[in-house]
Amino acid sequence: MPAQILVVDDMLLSRMILRAKLTAACYETRLASNGAEALRLVAESVPDLILLDCNLPDTTGLEICTRLREDPKTRNVPIILFSADSARSTRLLALEAGADEFFNKPMDDAFLMSRIRSLLRASAFEQDYQARATPGLRHGLAEAVSLFRPDGRVTLVRGRNVFAGSSDDILDAGAARIFHDSCNVTDILAGKFGQRKPDILLLAPEVLQEHGIHLISELRARHATRRIPIAVLLQEDAKSQRAMALDLGAEEVLSLPLDTEETQLRLRAMVKRKHRIDAMRHAIGVELDLASRDSLTGLFNRRYAMSRLSDIVMTPADAPSLTYALLLIDLDNFKQVNDSFGHVAGDEVLVEAAARMRDAIGPKDLLARYGGEEFLVVLPDADMTQAHAMAENIRARIEGRAYRLSNGNYSLNITASIGVTVQQSAQSDAYINRLDQIRLVVDLADHALRVAKSTGRNRVAIGQCADAVADGAPLGTEVNHDCVVRCARGGS
Amino acid sequence: MPAQILVVDDMLLSRMILRAKLTAACYETRLASNGAEALRLVAESVPDLILLDCNLPDTTGLEICTRLREDPKTRNVPIILFSADSARSTRLLALEAGADEFFNKPMDDAFLMSRIRSLLRASAFEQDYQARATPGLRHGLAEAVSLFRPDGRVTLVRGRNVFAGSSDDILDAGAARIFHDSCNVTDILAGKFGQRKPDILLLAPEVLQEHGIHLISELRARHATRRIPIAVLLQEDAKSQRAMALDLGAEEVLSLPLDTEETQLRLRAMVKRKHRIDAMRHAIGVELDLASRDSLTGLFNRRYAMSRLSDIVMTPADAPSLTYALLLIDLDNFKQVNDSFGHVAGDEVLVEAAARMRDAIGPKDLLARYGGEEFLVVLPDADMTQAHAMAENIRARIEGRAYRLSNGNYSLNITASIGVTVQQSAQSDAYINRLDQIRLVVDLADHALRVAKSTGRNRVAIGQCADAVADGAPLGTEVNHDCVVRCARGGS
Repeated sequence: MPAQILVVDDMLLSRMILRAKLTAACYETRLASNGAEALRLVAESVPDLILLDCNLPDTTGLEICTRLREDPKTRNVPIILFSADSARSTRLLALEAGADEFFNKPMDDAFLMSRIRSLLRASAFEQDYQARATPGLRHGLAEAVSLFRPDGRVTLVRGRNVFAGSSDDILDAGAARIFHDSCNVTDILAGKFGQRKPDILLLAPEVLQEHGIHLISELRARHATRRIPIAVLLQEDAKSQRAMALDLGAEEVLSLPLDTEETQLRLRAMVKRKHRIDAMRHAIGVELDLASRDSLTGLFNRRYAMSRLSDIVMTPADAPSLTYALLLIDLDNFKQVNDSFGHVAGDEVLVEAAARMRDAIGPKDLLARYGGEEFLVVLPDADMTQAHAMAENIRARIEGRAYRLSNGNYSLNITASIGVTVQQSAQSDAYINRLDQIRLVVDLADHALRVAKSTGRNRVAIGQCADAVADGAPLGTEVNHDCVVRCARGGS
Repeated sequence: MPAQILVVDDMLLSRMILRAKLTAACYETRLASNGAEALRLVAESVPDLILLDCNLPDTTGLEICTRLREDPKTRNVPIILFSADSARSTRLLALEAGADEFFNKPMDDAFLMSRIRSLLRASAFEQDYQARATPGLRHGLAEAVSLFRPDGRVTLVRGRNVFAGSSDDILDAGAARIFHDSCNVTDILAGKFGQRKPDILLLAPEVLQEHGIHLISELRARHATRRIPIAVLLQEDAKSQRAMALDLGAEEVLSLPLDTEETQLRLRAMVKRKHRIDAMRHAIGVELDLASRDSLTGLFNRRYAMSRLSDIVMTPADAPSLTYALLLIDLDNFKQVNDSFGHVAGDEVLVEAAARMRDAIGPKDLLARYGGEEFLVVLPDADMTQAHAMAENIRARIEGRAYRLSNGNYSLNITASIGVTVQQSAQSDAYINRLDQIRLVVDLADHALRVAKSTGRNRVAIGQCADAVADGAPLGTEVNHDCVVRCARGGS
């Protein structure tokens, strides 16, 4: 249950010291003294984070890091490489191999601990999305990831004054295309960006001096910037702020003078991570929308239609009652289409019929696929004349033109039968169950639909319940079975 | 685009000073000098946060706050009430009226600003979920919220040493049932809770002294605790830490000596907010799962089946090819059920048939509603003998018992026709399009299904494509149309 950290180090003493520090901070540690052991432990169970020495007796930390990055199971596990060798090339190789951070021994404890925290936080955030990955979402994700390209936009955030000590560095960084544009901190806080929303905010050293380190938390709070990862540029002597910057939510801390190549590697990794998270967010949005839609026609599905209907059949006690209409539309003899031309052809007809109905309805009306070849339309504020006109319009559009099938040269004539009912919304303080009310309305329309079918198809029939009938015909008491059905001849 | 803060204060000077401070921090401000004006501005457009004076010429800030909390549009807008009156009763009334925070004038600027940040951050987080609220989700939410009851569990987090100055307070708080259990900080970090996961972590004063203030960020990073809101108890003289605690992610800061009633009000508000967010998260999870399911039968839907199938028709280049089977199952003469008994009856039959199929398949098999009364089964690793046995099993189960309808005393006999095909998965380096491959397989099963229908229904037919046929019958080249179809008599 506690976060598990794998420590890979060939020196016993060094392993023990690291373990003591991590245990004091309540992490669970596992230890490996060489690469083979490390890989074996990872295969047994994937740790939450790996602290990995560059120098190992059987291989190098870089090699292990590269291998872990190639395996889908460990691709996103945070890895911190460390080495006694302080050569610039080692550091660059570590970042290139996919390490999230590189430390020189002896390590700065406070910064190491805040680094571990920040990496675990970012990783837990991603795992949140992964955990949501229902089977459908996993497929959506694979598609969404390919939508995002790896060219990120880094925006340098400037303060009022540029410090003499950093201006050359910034100029060099600009020349090296480390950032793509720059922006004033006040504009950023106001959500005013340049041409394009940045992928990364790179805070110039003067910014935190002018606004205080809590600016990071300010950017995390603002709507416009809260999802943009922050990298902080610090003067060489401001190292004490590094840990706090990470704890406040910055993802990366860079010290001046900037190493161009290293900075580019770090920023590129940030962009990649951001795009991964954007893709997941996008996939979830798509998936959530899909949950209320029919996948074939793109219309709302039955579940959604029923929940919308439950808002319509009943109005708040203090709001006026509304007259609404419900239409049940069924394509005639549709089974024959499937049986004679196959399901692909049947689907084409459904898609085309759905499009014609979509053209017929108004912006406030609800159109849903109710099941199979049956559709449902709700007109939230319509009387019998309007409802009948709409039903007749839909019937005529569906009959209107022949349906061309893409496979073969067939062209089909399709008609629809429609059952209509018009009701008053109930007051929500009335002693009526919402679900009973929905069932009643759908049953009335369904009954009318069956009458339309049995009297010849391609026509509209109206179903009204007993108490809505004006002409005083002798009617029974059970609303459900006592419908007055009038038939309107189709096409007349 | 910048966060908009409404300042309501009857004193001109006080309004101007607040505006200057907020503008300096890059917030957009609007000003109102009385309650009527405030309500008018809110009605025009809802601000991101409201700073509200208790004393207004036409009404009281408390009254305004109460009204805003009653309106669904402003129910969750952060409100900070302030007053020159330092009476305890005023503070309690403010919190009772639904204010998120109460300040005495003159206000502590640093703390005010960090309070604004932390409230905006929490509110943006909630708005994220709201923004996801597709129509379907909004309904799911309404249901989910009702699942969570307002009794939250507050766990006091203790350090090693209890400071003399605070032990009485803690005892009093315990007696007042402000917290429900207590736990050691090391256990909390290790994810070891008492009987139940806490809803709120209340950090005792010694904890931050022993572990440093970055413990807050540590708790935000750990998997077990990252979603549990944190309230911090501070010694009276540790006020300088208040702003930082909020910036690091604490939601509430309480100073000793504790006011029992105030603490309870604040913790109750935290619990309410947490449950609201839990409910949204739950609703999203439900919704995501629904996106891959058919709402009537609860089986996977067609979209999901197709995406799973796309994994099955092709295997990685270095993995062995697998033999898989696809079954298309169609209920016979189903249209008659709908036409004669109505859609409710038709749905009952579909649900019952789905349940019988679900009982037939194995844990690794995929069963989906393919559309209308048609179902699809994929056996990811099955040869012809196994596939035929499964198809026959399903056919027999569907025919097995009569289907009783809940409405009326009818009992229906239902049968199904089944088309089966067995294929080898393609290697992913083969020059074959995945979608073409899916289409081919489904077409083969569909063709077999139509043969089963046309030769008398309630039977299983096998569709094999040309190159899979052993007996060397003269066959054309177009796989799509050259199926060897063998019919197995149903029930034999």
